[in-house]
Amino acid sequence: MATSSFQAVGVFANQTSSLIQESLQRVVTFLESRGAAVLVEKAAASGMGLKVPTATRAEILQQVELVIAIGGDGSMLGAARDIAPHGLPLLGVNRGRLGFLADVSPEEIETQLARVLDGQGEVEEHFLLEGVVSSSGTEPATALNEITVHSAAMPSMIEFELFIDGGFVYHQASDGLIVSSPTGSTAYALSAGGPIMPPTLDAIALVPMFPHSLNSRPLVVPGDAELKITLAEKAGTEAKVSFDSQLEFRLQPGESVLVKKAAHRLKLLHPPGQSFYGVCRSKLGWASQKNG
Amino acid sequence: MATSSFQAVGVFANQTSSLIQESLQRVVTFLESRGAAVLVEKAAASGMGLKVPTATRAEILQQVELVIAIGGDGSMLGAARDIAPHGLPLLGVNRGRLGFLADVSPEEIETQLARVLDGQGEVEEHFLLEGVVSSSGTEPATALNEITVHSAAMPSMIEFELFIDGGFVYHQASDGLIVSSPTGSTAYALSAGGPIMPPTLDAIALVPMFPHSLNSRPLVVPGDAELKITLAEKAGTEAKVSFDSQLEFRLQPGESVLVKKAAHRLKLLHPPGQSFYGVCRSKLGWASQKNG
Amino acid sequence: MATSSFQAVGVFANQTSSLIQESLQRVVTFLESRGAAVLVEKAAASGMGLKVPTATRAEILQQVELVIAIGGDGSMLGAARDIAPHGLPLLGVNRGRLGFLADVSPEEIETQLARVLDGQGEVEEHFLLEGVVSSSGTEPATALNEITVHSAAMPSMIEFELFIDGGFVYHQASDGLIVSSPTGSTAYALSAGGPIMPPTLDAIALVPMFPHSLNSRPLVVPGDAELKITLAEKAGTEAKVSFDSQLEFRLQPGESVLVKKAAHRLKLLHPPGQSFYGVCRSKLGWASQKNG
Amino acid sequence: MATSSFQAVGVFANQTSSLIQESLQRVVTFLESRGAAVLVEKAAASGMGLKVPTATRAEILQQVELVIAIGGDGSMLGAARDIAPHGLPLLGVNRGRLGFLADVSPEEIETQLARVLDGQGEVEEHFLLEGVVSSSGTEPATALNEITVHSAAMPSMIEFELFIDGGFVYHQASDGLIVSSPTGSTAYALSAGGPIMPPTLDAIALVPMFPHSLNSRPLVVPGDAELKITLAEKAGTEAKVSFDSQLEFRLQPGESVLVKKAAHRLKLLHPPGQSFYGVCRSKLGWASQKNG
Repeated sequence: MATSSFQAVGVFANQTSSLIQESLQRVVTFLESRGAAVLVEKAAASGMGLKVPTATRAEILQQVELVIAIGGDGSMLGAARDIAPHGLPLLGVNRGRLGFLADVSPEEIETQLARVLDGQGEVEEHFLLEGVVSSSGTEPATALNEITVHSAAMPSMIEFELFIDGGFVYHQASDGLIVSSPTGSTAYALSAGGPIMPPTLDAIALVPMFPHSLNSRPLVVPGDAELKITLAEKAGTEAKVSFDSQLEFRLQPGESVLVKKAAHRLKLLHPPGQSFYGVCRSKLGWASQKNG
Repeated sequence: MATSSFQAVGVFANQTSSLIQESLQRVVTFLESRGAAVLVEKAAASGMGLKVPTATRAEILQQVELVIAIGGDGSMLGAARDIAPHGLPLLGVNRGRLGFLADVSPEEIETQLARVLDGQGEVEEHFLLEGVVSSSGTEPATALNEITVHSAAMPSMIEFELFIDGGFVYHQASDGLIVSSPTGSTAYALSAGGPIMPPTLDAIALVPMFPHSLNSRPLVVPGDAELKITLAEKAGTEAKVSFDSQLEFRLQPGESVLVKKAAHRLKLLHPPGQSFYGVCRSKLGWASQKNG
Repeated sequence: MATSSFQAVGVFANQTSSLIQESLQRVVTFLESRGAAVLVEKAAASGMGLKVPTATRAEILQQVELVIAIGGDGSMLGAARDIAPHGLPLLGVNRGRLGFLADVSPEEIETQLARVLDGQGEVEEHFLLEGVVSSSGTEPATALNEITVHSAAMPSMIEFELFIDGGFVYHQASDGLIVSSPTGSTAYALSAGGPIMPPTLDAIALVPMFPHSLNSRPLVVPGDAELKITLAEKAGTEAKVSFDSQLEFRLQPGESVLVKKAAHRLKLLHPPGQSFYGVCRSKLGWASQKNG
Repeated sequence: MATSSFQAVGVFANQTSSLIQESLQRVVTFLESRGAAVLVEKAAASGMGLKVPTATRAEILQQVELVIAIGGDGSMLGAARDIAPHGLPLLGVNRGRLGFLADVSPEEIETQLARVLDGQGEVEEHFLLEGVVSSSGTEPATALNEITVHSAAMPSMIEFELFIDGGFVYHQASDGLIVSSPTGSTAYALSAGGPIMPPTLDAIALVPMFPHSLNSRPLVVPGDAELKITLAEKAGTEAKVSFDSQLEFRLQPGESVLVKKAAHRLKLLHPPGQSFYGVCRSKLGWASQKNG
């Protein structure tokens, strides 16, 4: 039997449903059968009968060479933000149908993990966005999909200005603005009318949410653009800044949020043979009939 | 009086309306007053009373350091395709309101040309697309805005496959596909729902024309992507490939058109103080009210 | 001097800005000069130096033949919902630029009111929507523009089913659904991609908000359709039902909101010469150049 | 055996592929087994071995009580335009998957025809549009789906004015305008961003094709609206008027096309249990998961 190209593997799972448990057991059993040192996230392991070393997410990230995350899209986004700064590869086991981030299905755990441990996985780099409220004095937060500035009490309009690399772009009245990475282009930004962008594109999309003016359209700018969104002073406006719809901060009238590409990238590991456009065909229902 | 930073200037104008004539005379008079050697496109000069050296477009491109084109969007596109391989800067005098390509208005000819001749102009690079029908054995043609593959008898559907860098992307039934450069993103592609892209973005947009499936959305891919669009074999389908809606070639069932970034870029010269987003605000009606 | 065709006129204004005050004074002064019995909303009159009879909104609606409302779009919507059941005509004085509901501008108060009092006004009927949470046991609330079912914590997805006249239509995952009258078709529904509908159309538009599936499109159904939107039982989903973005109710998982045309219509009074498409040209920037 | 509620049945099929032939034979055999007098379109019958009375389409329409059309969407549209003025019901046998017009699938021919002949079919009325070039002196032509005014040499822009019931609406620069019935709302108009409208809606949708201005949006107007589209005088513009993409006429600069609801309606016959929204779920991929 081949020895794994990854000696130490961490496993993340932030829910404890029976489906997650079942996949978790299969992942752990398989990894151990291949001689890998396995470290499972403490919270996820607590409900298992299986004896397996556990640790906090932070501890795991110090000790492993690969992280496997089990769960849905939300779990992947959280894992991605945690893992990216450590430069570790992430492999996702999805508890739904094939996804853009988690592309090992539960019934294929052993076959796909075997190929990945044998070094056949393909790394796809995804950049993250980072954003910070200018006056907050806090560290920037990151998002894999999108940073959204939106009315705190939707549906209702906010007014803001957009600046790119210090230059004024427009004043907009809308429910908000989605600042999306290529990774996020198949998520919320797509629902709002944004274009699809493969992870290899070095670009950021700005997609207005229900813009008051019909002239507002999605804008795609270079990946190294520095964006500033300033909430208008207009009394009564309240807004929030959301990161992957998982973290949020309040934005006061007159305050700005600064958004740019984060320094670290996510190394997403795919089983061999996966491609971005293949997942598009599967997830978005694109026709795949080929010309005979 | 300052000496011009451009000693020899060519002037293109491919219509002979009285408005074009008037601007042409002002341009020539001003250039000569600044001591520049002026060479006017033969066809345009024929109707003028003014004595001025003339030459063909091809001759002019061998002898000048700057080309000034007078006309509307269509004239600019043609001039751009001709000029780009020669690496010469292009300055546009628009006979309408401020445009993305021609941003000297007729009433400002002297003031703006003075600034440009004094070296205050700003060069903005725009890449062109090149496309060729695979089996044609001909040279690729270029487009500044877009290359469009479409039904020869619109409105009617064609079926085709898209490949990016050799990988299959989708089979699509639609009236056609617009392959747009960033420069074209504010032209036909925008009418078809594509995103706006500044000329600094290294990307190509693929925008479906009336797609039969609701799942089809604009796609933005890296600028160095090599695209192949293959017309389905299905009997009775006839298609055309259009370059900037100015040149067109027939595409037979089973034939492919190959599209990629052209080797040469257009050096578009702007008077100082112009910006892409400023022109967007003016042309697209974006609100420009700033936060007091 | 002509006698007014309206003997008793109520005046609504629900803000007390100095601009509103100024228009209120001009309206009252002009109405009194024409011999009309004027009754001003108590809250609005309190800040005025002018001596004028005041009453509550409810009292006014019992005593007048015409209501003039002064304010922006929000004020018009509130006035419309209050007035419609009483069958009284409403004339709007706008404190912004020409609007769909309030089309007397502040500087034209005297000229336009004169024409309306002389009987030259044109009545345009607008139907309202009414909606009720099925299990609430409360009276239905009304909306002139739209009734929106949306996630209580946007941006986030809800899941719901739509039934029309008792028949199942679809299960949708989105941020919500806008149910719009023709009047609302130029408001929030338009920002979400809905079609424009003149007030003479007997139809209701259903416009999805950021639908998760790309197959979701705006749907326009007959004006007498009875709609039911049922929030999925899925744990954790919280939703709200909003009426003209001014009133809102909570919708629990498994609960339904029933929406149909309200029994009463708003009689909106326009000065002579106004038309729906004319306001579209003005407000939406439609080109009005006519063929010579 | 039950006697058919239709004594004389015509069968249309305007192609002679082997698949069409096969369905035609099954339809004829079944109808004759039920004692109906069958009359097959001459062109279609010529390739069959089966002995069956034939006639021209015009002759058939004088003699039958029901028409069954076999083919794809194009065949249905042609049959519908021919049949509507005669007030006869139309049943469609589709050679593809379930369609909006032809909803008997080839493998269900006997079971579904049996139910329809037994009187269980449900009639759904669809209005047609009629259009005429004002100066042509010809009879109006009809369309079941849409009448499209478009550039004769697409992709290229035309300019025109729209008038509704004699009132000016807008001047538009675009590739054209789709005037769609509710029936056409799931066809070409949908690809161009128009709303979905059930056949019960008395309305017409006007959907711009690649409008030059971002302010142009689909417009839905009452079904009894009389529309006039006038091509601008601007030199060089050539346009066409298309009916269901099957018939077309040339429109000269300055000429108008007049469009309104046709006097006759199509009586489309559905097997029991079909519904418009059910076909939407099937054809458009709408989710049909119901709330448990």
